[in-house]
Amino acid sequence: MSNQVRDDEGLCCSPMTGEPLSAEQAAELSSVFKALGDPVRLRLLSLIAAHADGEACVCDLSGAFELSGPTISHHLKVLREAGAITGERRGTWVYYRVLPETLRRLAAVLGPAPSASTSA
Amino acid sequence: MSNQVRDDEGLCCSPMTGEPLSAEQAAELSSVFKALGDPVRLRLLSLIAAHADGEACVCDLSGAFELSGPTISHHLKVLREAGAITGERRGTWVYYRVLPETLRRLAAVLGPAPSASTSA
Repeated sequence: MSNQVRDDEGLCCSPMTGEPLSAEQAAELSSVFKALGDPVRLRLLSLIAAHADGEACVCDLSGAFELSGPTISHHLKVLREAGAITGERRGTWVYYRVLPETLRRLAAVLGPAPSASTSA
Repeated sequence: MSNQVRDDEGLCCSPMTGEPLSAEQAAELSSVFKALGDPVRLRLLSLIAAHADGEACVCDLSGAFELSGPTISHHLKVLREAGAITGERRGTWVYYRVLPETLRRLAAVLGPAPSASTSA
């Protein structure tokens, strides 16, 4: 029941209130934060996460934006390269899913969960 | 004991696996993610969070980097403007603290805490 999360790259994610991140951990994690540091990408990620069955294709997503298909595809590619989502082609469409391990890793490093308040 | 976090700007942060972020929420949150999307800033944040008493001045931080004082101060300013840290001048130094509400808000939106599974 600890907040510690390990991913398959061996990067640990204790809350950074416990111990500071190494330069290597910071480089890895900051690249994912950077991918989320764009309003369109963050909305895309949340639309995928909230979609039925946890997966969505561009056809499900593009209606939420006044952006071209290629622009949306570019943002999806950035999220994918950052390890925030995966994509699987089935027939005409690529179906995207959030990678929950990545999000948990980010959440864990940001600190203890709200329910684990350490306020005195 | 819900994962929902409200901040004083009224932006809620339910896990985005529950419902997608609005454009306004995404704009607000992505600006903080963007501030964390740099390895130096993420390390600075973690050094402050992990420092004794939860606060640190530039004098405590600069030794961890091969960067000039002004460069570190610039990164601290970005973190401050994003609402990730606060700074308070006392005598010669500005002392920085993490704003835990901001980090909790980000963690909450990234999904349920590992220990608070909502699986049906």
